[in-house]
Amino acid sequence: MAHMSATRLFTEADLSAGADTELTEAQAHYLRHVMRRDAGAPLLLFNGRHGEWQATLSLRGKKGAAAQVAAQTRPQAAEPDLWLCFAPVKRARIDWIAEKATELGVAALQPVITRHTIVERVNVERLRANAVEAAEQTERLSVPEVRAPVEFARLLADWPAGRRLLMADETGGGRPIAEALGELDKAARAAPWGIVIGPEGGFAADELTALRRMKDVTAVGLGPRILRADTAALAALACWQASVGDWRQPTPRLSSDYRSSRGAV
Amino acid sequence: MAHMSATRLFTEADLSAGADTELTEAQAHYLRHVMRRDAGAPLLLFNGRHGEWQATLSLRGKKGAAAQVAAQTRPQAAEPDLWLCFAPVKRARIDWIAEKATELGVAALQPVITRHTIVERVNVERLRANAVEAAEQTERLSVPEVRAPVEFARLLADWPAGRRLLMADETGGGRPIAEALGELDKAARAAPWGIVIGPEGGFAADELTALRRMKDVTAVGLGPRILRADTAALAALACWQASVGDWRQPTPRLSSDYRSSRGAV
Repeated sequence: MAHMSATRLFTEADLSAGADTELTEAQAHYLRHVMRRDAGAPLLLFNGRHGEWQATLSLRGKKGAAAQVAAQTRPQAAEPDLWLCFAPVKRARIDWIAEKATELGVAALQPVITRHTIVERVNVERLRANAVEAAEQTERLSVPEVRAPVEFARLLADWPAGRRLLMADETGGGRPIAEALGELDKAARAAPWGIVIGPEGGFAADELTALRRMKDVTAVGLGPRILRADTAALAALACWQASVGDWRQPTPRLSSDYRSSRGAV
Repeated sequence: MAHMSATRLFTEADLSAGADTELTEAQAHYLRHVMRRDAGAPLLLFNGRHGEWQATLSLRGKKGAAAQVAAQTRPQAAEPDLWLCFAPVKRARIDWIAEKATELGVAALQPVITRHTIVERVNVERLRANAVEAAEQTERLSVPEVRAPVEFARLLADWPAGRRLLMADETGGGRPIAEALGELDKAARAAPWGIVIGPEGGFAADELTALRRMKDVTAVGLGPRILRADTAALAALACWQASVGDWRQPTPRLSSDYRSSRGAV
């Protein structure tokens, strides 16, 4: 057990020292039957509100499980207020967008139905499951909000005042992304943001016009190659985090104890 | 036929007006039996040397196919001289690295076996097939070189003089990536580069030391979240392209003809 790495789980429950937290059926099954964990096995729990906590597994009957919460390992840290608004794509690629966008630190995933969107049905529950798993496996302290799909016109009509909009312009109209983001003033950097990515077929002409007419829109280009929608989404996210988001702060040096306990080194 | 979008294919053959280019068995099968194309169907061909050319399909016997090359649609453009050196990961993720790195414009994919690399066998042919497909589908004019795996120590020992090295430091020792890349001087920006990404388990301590001792190494951090190896590779690639690579130039405005002919709008 000394060298068993802790299983990291998201929970909806409040977390505090001494708390006895019921785990879901799926988590109990995963721990007992997939990971073959016994009572006392080390856990790390987070809920998006109270940071990350060490805990130990306790078994409940034949199928259930709970966690005895001990000490906090990390305080809660807020993710940047960044939405990713993307046209749904085929199953493997949309799962991948949910996973990668979670790792890259988005606050919300917003599927958007545009004129040229081919995939109209979105399994929001599956997207959320992907986001939870990505958050559990990559040390994130929260799970992004996964929203129900909205029509493109509705997204723009309801766009919150003061939320900046980063638009990947696949027609070649945009400025180079590093240049455009590098020149943002303090107010723009402090503002909430949303990244809007079109479908494989691109935005329709009237959609592009509507986007360019938005207040506080920044239209950027992502180089001379035509990127798939999922690639464009992740590239724009990484560039935004690097020059506007929380990648601008030096990254915390993880203690080797913490990293080895996570199997992360 | 008027509205049939051209099928874009990579070929090893020379390309020039009037050339009659044999297609591979796989390409012939794809065009004839998967896409159900007939003689005269529109094609776009590129070979990494002569730009992109319009061509038409001609059938050869029961199974074969060739392309009659007509006019050049785009002149050849070089990709930035950027290597992605990455520790092999599980099948789906390594396929995905090959696809995304190709879209993001790497010149070479170099699998590297590190101390904590779990996956040691790499199917170079499959990686190359993924790179070819990504290049065909995302308008790239070349296919990255896919190299055989090398041991980490060998990679560093053979590292070319003058090639800069961007290292994603998951221990938190690196500077924020946008800051580190933004401060590069002209010589550094003009130099060839390589990005080195560790395995899921991270670099071993002595590997980190060896990397930090390299000449012209830039150790960067990718934010407070711990990224999977594949996510770190793609995020570093996007940030490098945005602030050092060819994403710094305004993107060419694609003619609507070209885009509709490609089904890209």
